[in-house]
Amino acid sequence: MPEHSPTAAHRKLRYAMVGGGRDAFIGGVHRKAAALDGQIELVAGALSSTPDKARASGRDLFLSDARNHGSWQELLADELKRPPEERIDFVSIVTPNHLHFPVAKAFVDAGFHVVCDKPLVHTSAQAQELVAAVHQQGTVFGVTYNYTGYPMVRQMREMVRSGVLGVVRKVVVEYHQGWLATHLEASGNKQAQWRMDPAQSGMAGAMGDIGSHAENLLTSVTGLEVEAICADLSAMGAGRTLDDDCNVLLRLRGGAKGVLMASQICIGCENGLRLRVFGTEGSLDWQQENPNQLLHAPLGVLPRILTRGTPGLSPAAQQATRLPSGHPEGFIEAFANVYLGVASDIRARLEGRQATPLQADYPRVEDGARGVRMIEKVVESAHASHKWTPL
Amino acid sequence: MPEHSPTAAHRKLRYAMVGGGRDAFIGGVHRKAAALDGQIELVAGALSSTPDKARASGRDLFLSDARNHGSWQELLADELKRPPEERIDFVSIVTPNHLHFPVAKAFVDAGFHVVCDKPLVHTSAQAQELVAAVHQQGTVFGVTYNYTGYPMVRQMREMVRSGVLGVVRKVVVEYHQGWLATHLEASGNKQAQWRMDPAQSGMAGAMGDIGSHAENLLTSVTGLEVEAICADLSAMGAGRTLDDDCNVLLRLRGGAKGVLMASQICIGCENGLRLRVFGTEGSLDWQQENPNQLLHAPLGVLPRILTRGTPGLSPAAQQATRLPSGHPEGFIEAFANVYLGVASDIRARLEGRQATPLQADYPRVEDGARGVRMIEKVVESAHASHKWTPL
Amino acid sequence: MPEHSPTAAHRKLRYAMVGGGRDAFIGGVHRKAAALDGQIELVAGALSSTPDKARASGRDLFLSDARNHGSWQELLADELKRPPEERIDFVSIVTPNHLHFPVAKAFVDAGFHVVCDKPLVHTSAQAQELVAAVHQQGTVFGVTYNYTGYPMVRQMREMVRSGVLGVVRKVVVEYHQGWLATHLEASGNKQAQWRMDPAQSGMAGAMGDIGSHAENLLTSVTGLEVEAICADLSAMGAGRTLDDDCNVLLRLRGGAKGVLMASQICIGCENGLRLRVFGTEGSLDWQQENPNQLLHAPLGVLPRILTRGTPGLSPAAQQATRLPSGHPEGFIEAFANVYLGVASDIRARLEGRQATPLQADYPRVEDGARGVRMIEKVVESAHASHKWTPL
Amino acid sequence: MPEHSPTAAHRKLRYAMVGGGRDAFIGGVHRKAAALDGQIELVAGALSSTPDKARASGRDLFLSDARNHGSWQELLADELKRPPEERIDFVSIVTPNHLHFPVAKAFVDAGFHVVCDKPLVHTSAQAQELVAAVHQQGTVFGVTYNYTGYPMVRQMREMVRSGVLGVVRKVVVEYHQGWLATHLEASGNKQAQWRMDPAQSGMAGAMGDIGSHAENLLTSVTGLEVEAICADLSAMGAGRTLDDDCNVLLRLRGGAKGVLMASQICIGCENGLRLRVFGTEGSLDWQQENPNQLLHAPLGVLPRILTRGTPGLSPAAQQATRLPSGHPEGFIEAFANVYLGVASDIRARLEGRQATPLQADYPRVEDGARGVRMIEKVVESAHASHKWTPL
Repeated sequence: MPEHSPTAAHRKLRYAMVGGGRDAFIGGVHRKAAALDGQIELVAGALSSTPDKARASGRDLFLSDARNHGSWQELLADELKRPPEERIDFVSIVTPNHLHFPVAKAFVDAGFHVVCDKPLVHTSAQAQELVAAVHQQGTVFGVTYNYTGYPMVRQMREMVRSGVLGVVRKVVVEYHQGWLATHLEASGNKQAQWRMDPAQSGMAGAMGDIGSHAENLLTSVTGLEVEAICADLSAMGAGRTLDDDCNVLLRLRGGAKGVLMASQICIGCENGLRLRVFGTEGSLDWQQENPNQLLHAPLGVLPRILTRGTPGLSPAAQQATRLPSGHPEGFIEAFANVYLGVASDIRARLEGRQATPLQADYPRVEDGARGVRMIEKVVESAHASHKWTPL
Repeated sequence: MPEHSPTAAHRKLRYAMVGGGRDAFIGGVHRKAAALDGQIELVAGALSSTPDKARASGRDLFLSDARNHGSWQELLADELKRPPEERIDFVSIVTPNHLHFPVAKAFVDAGFHVVCDKPLVHTSAQAQELVAAVHQQGTVFGVTYNYTGYPMVRQMREMVRSGVLGVVRKVVVEYHQGWLATHLEASGNKQAQWRMDPAQSGMAGAMGDIGSHAENLLTSVTGLEVEAICADLSAMGAGRTLDDDCNVLLRLRGGAKGVLMASQICIGCENGLRLRVFGTEGSLDWQQENPNQLLHAPLGVLPRILTRGTPGLSPAAQQATRLPSGHPEGFIEAFANVYLGVASDIRARLEGRQATPLQADYPRVEDGARGVRMIEKVVESAHASHKWTPL
Repeated sequence: MPEHSPTAAHRKLRYAMVGGGRDAFIGGVHRKAAALDGQIELVAGALSSTPDKARASGRDLFLSDARNHGSWQELLADELKRPPEERIDFVSIVTPNHLHFPVAKAFVDAGFHVVCDKPLVHTSAQAQELVAAVHQQGTVFGVTYNYTGYPMVRQMREMVRSGVLGVVRKVVVEYHQGWLATHLEASGNKQAQWRMDPAQSGMAGAMGDIGSHAENLLTSVTGLEVEAICADLSAMGAGRTLDDDCNVLLRLRGGAKGVLMASQICIGCENGLRLRVFGTEGSLDWQQENPNQLLHAPLGVLPRILTRGTPGLSPAAQQATRLPSGHPEGFIEAFANVYLGVASDIRARLEGRQATPLQADYPRVEDGARGVRMIEKVVESAHASHKWTPL
Repeated sequence: MPEHSPTAAHRKLRYAMVGGGRDAFIGGVHRKAAALDGQIELVAGALSSTPDKARASGRDLFLSDARNHGSWQELLADELKRPPEERIDFVSIVTPNHLHFPVAKAFVDAGFHVVCDKPLVHTSAQAQELVAAVHQQGTVFGVTYNYTGYPMVRQMREMVRSGVLGVVRKVVVEYHQGWLATHLEASGNKQAQWRMDPAQSGMAGAMGDIGSHAENLLTSVTGLEVEAICADLSAMGAGRTLDDDCNVLLRLRGGAKGVLMASQICIGCENGLRLRVFGTEGSLDWQQENPNQLLHAPLGVLPRILTRGTPGLSPAAQQATRLPSGHPEGFIEAFANVYLGVASDIRARLEGRQATPLQADYPRVEDGARGVRMIEKVVESAHASHKWTPL
């Protein structure tokens, strides 16, 4: 992946971050991902909903006082006052889920490009409102379904969509974690607290937090619409109102069947996201904890091991690759590929070009909206006594 | 595992085989399993439903002409005429599924001990009739759910049942094969033909053939009754009336949830049986293609790798082990453990003892009956529009 | 692998065992291996050098009193008195190493076929004497280098020898165990005691016990003669006079370089035998603890996974295979393949035929002699101050 | 790993890069590693020995024209003219090997802190001169032995050095690549060309390029001095004068034995660096292509799997960790840890503090010098006819 040589807008892109202050987890990942390739710089922020904490967090990151704000509203107002040559190119929203909607809506309405964490918002109504706003503004809106940023996931997507597997017959996507096996939210763990609080997390627990990644991975790779689901949600942990274990039967357009499992009570599982796709001509198997490999079993011949960085991979995989094979790339690099896609799209606009699909390879606001709908329908199905709930 | 030193009946046990002639697959596995430990010898047979083929097959195996029969009825009649010191100790039934019932019933009714392949019979009515007959005769009846013969499956069972995992919360059992991904039954493959023929195979395809192994593995290991299921069965292969792909949501007694998957259209999967059990205190993960290992992740400490043959394993695992760790044991050895359990039980009776549970560690006719009921209920659930079908 | 249908000598082959009584390890493995395929039966024995123990051990195995002997000399004398239709077809020698030579020599001189454990004998002088005796008698003599009985080792051999890898450039063979990391021989462990006693074990410890397996694996697979070695032997365990750790640089005919490592003090290693062969056109990698797989990396294309039992493997691998892929075969099955090769050769002679090389696929007395020479030269090199010791 | 909150020098550190222009490989890795954590910014450069290419490369990276130089001499002169508040904090040298010495020496003599790629220089004489200069100046000098930046390598180091393994008995370090299996340097591959050219690469090929990483990994982790070696070097590729395959027997202080293998002709190996350390109380096994795991086999209990990011790891490992377990970190993150160590040391000096050993955890100029000596001695040993060459 060559470092870029843009002919116009010959500068790093500038961004602000909302959320991600001290004690947060995912904000720091976004910052590392954005910084990795030397294309993007952090220039402003409103890093916490607590003003003092926000400003202390911004100082940690060497933000200038003038652009280190106590609230996202101040940040937005300040940016709107600045001349274009200073203004941020986009904002990155990494707050708990319940703030995604108001912050994203305000920045989109003000004409800013946005990167937003997942799940996008709490309800399909919000999601549709946001999709409409983005369409109206014509702005860039990326959702950090980061797992689809892995080169071998993109390779898998290109192979499935180009028919290497023939007709897809079965998909199994599982996302097993164990960190909520105990009552962690009672012991002061901030990450556990907001995830198990419906007010902050939304109508679903594990399904929203990681099941939505599983849905996005499945849908992105196969390109197949989920037509109907049959879900069983459980709250295994004492006192929980949100699910920590989800098992879902799937029916996909075109006749494929499938299973989606997402759980956070599976002791021994760290971040066990795996996708298997079986077609009439072969299968593919990818596991997030070993992300540089993809196992391809074609019908009737020996299974082969594809590794990131080897010749012959698709342009989409090659573009997402920084190192030769055998030199492991990981989670941050995949995350950075989402930022690179967004940056390519924004930079093209700055240069008056339209980015190619290969360049602008990142999950959109519509992907986020589809994910919200999936969460809603899984919850609906879990309460239904009939077997199949259509999407 | 020491070679036995019985004090009475100091001889090898004698058995006859029904089915398993030339072109058959599983019969030869039974014979190797029975022969492995030097405890059991094959002395008679009716190895095919075609008399000429039966006798030719028996000659291949060095059977004497006098005990090499053209039909199982002749075999049974001949055995009944022989004096006890010559007579077989048990019969092993390895025919296609539809013959299990009549053959097994006849031998049980005649007072013989029986080993029978799975699935036991076609219907729960037959299964109950057979269970009643066995109870009435008080004979030994083993069902070759061979996967529970693996030492590390027995280790898993002992650990789960003794509470090492705490309360079981989730189980995932999958059994993925790929050999029926193409229309193999149309190309003269005998194994495929009878499995996809309802008259020989029964009401289910993949669910009967391998899903029943998955059910047995799950139930044997956890000891938890399946209370309700929600199944989706598919016949992906053109022209098939029986399922080749099954996905089932499970609810177990005590509140655990689960998923059972069984499929024979998963290209790239050879014999991919895997069981994961997650409890409040840890998890266990076992895979049939790497059967000498068991991964144990206790809550809060490092995951550890248990290997067959290492000190500290349960007596049930140690008894089923022949070699030190690092010296792989496989499918036949596991199969042989079922035969050893049956042989121990028969030998104890010959010696007027009662075998201990540790010695008589093999699946019983009741396990076979439960498997048949599971198949029936999965098929019923697959046709239902309501979500949960109680068992 | 079809069960045989011999047209003459239509019976099981008969064998006697010397050594392998109660408390022994490898004798029981030989018996299971010989029994597995229903081709060979144990009819006589002298199972220990202690007469009472010998006879008690024979009773455990259901030997008749008449053929259950207190010494190998009695066994030999008794066999020579029996008529041919009762007499054993071969003897299997599974004693500690120091008895291999006298027992083997006596049975060969008496015209019996022999299976003998490895290392063959203590010195090259003995080895040459034995080779000469076998040549003079024209008898079958198999050495149980059992690891070359694995189907995927045979596959590897066929691929290397047929040039699939081009010219071999580098070989790495390692055999790491950990069971002698502590001073086990001081705690009464019989297996450890004789192995660390030069009188019983010979001039080498780990090199003789497992290094000789590594040498045989390397030489069998590549067909390349070792031209020179540079060895470093260590006795890490307190009070040991024999090596428990060996590291050897290798130069092979044709220019390939290599490394042989054998150690019994590597805690955490169970039976870690691995062979990697690198050529100008690709590489192969096989590991004994995962014996059903072979990894093949051809130059310039994706690496592929060969599994035992899949179509397209060499006849030598297919012949050594009992089960479909995904149904693990292990150590005993590989061991049994050595016995099957010997049995095929003996049976052919009984029928007046010459066995084909494919049928008579087993390690010979010459392989055993080469192994003894390798051990001697490694010990010589370890004491030399010059770098290279020619073989 | 918290983002830093320095109390003085509250700004990013500034650095310049020498080498690493268009077509180079490792320079880009250094830049990503330096950028990742938001602590360091690139402000100047002389990115190629070809002035036009140097400046074009600098423009790609958004360098200002004033600090984008055509040669490292111009860069150095320019920096010396700048006021301290603008001047770089350190220079990063990523040229081919033969330029390391003159560039590093000049910057050290001018009082600059340095990061330099490995192998440090071509000869021990140069190395000693450089060590002396660094000592005289008292400056920071980091060598990018990046593999010791992996968290689980640091964990391994802490465990071995604190005695968890008891006394070390055996080490096996291997570094197998396959990319030079063909005559790649003849086809215009720039990376292959300079590596196989003694004028640019030095006296060794694979030993210098990757064997020196193996030596550093081994020495860093165990803390044991190599006392004597016995090496076999080969140039397998046609026309090569430098080695592409190395096998070395090792004797370490304290009595441990070992093997070092480094090869670039091993087809199928991508970047196969692995270190195994066996002691009297257990063993550790780490593989670079699966860098987030470390296998620990303690004597007498079950082996356990340590994963990066789990509680209970050493402070050195925790400090080097950015993400929770299950979220893979890779090559760049390990590389970045070397930069973080250097940056911590420089920042401490800027603030008038002395960095703790935990903070200043990076390979020093002395480590680089030791690596050069090892390369020299391996080459000497390879030409010797006696077995052991002392170091």
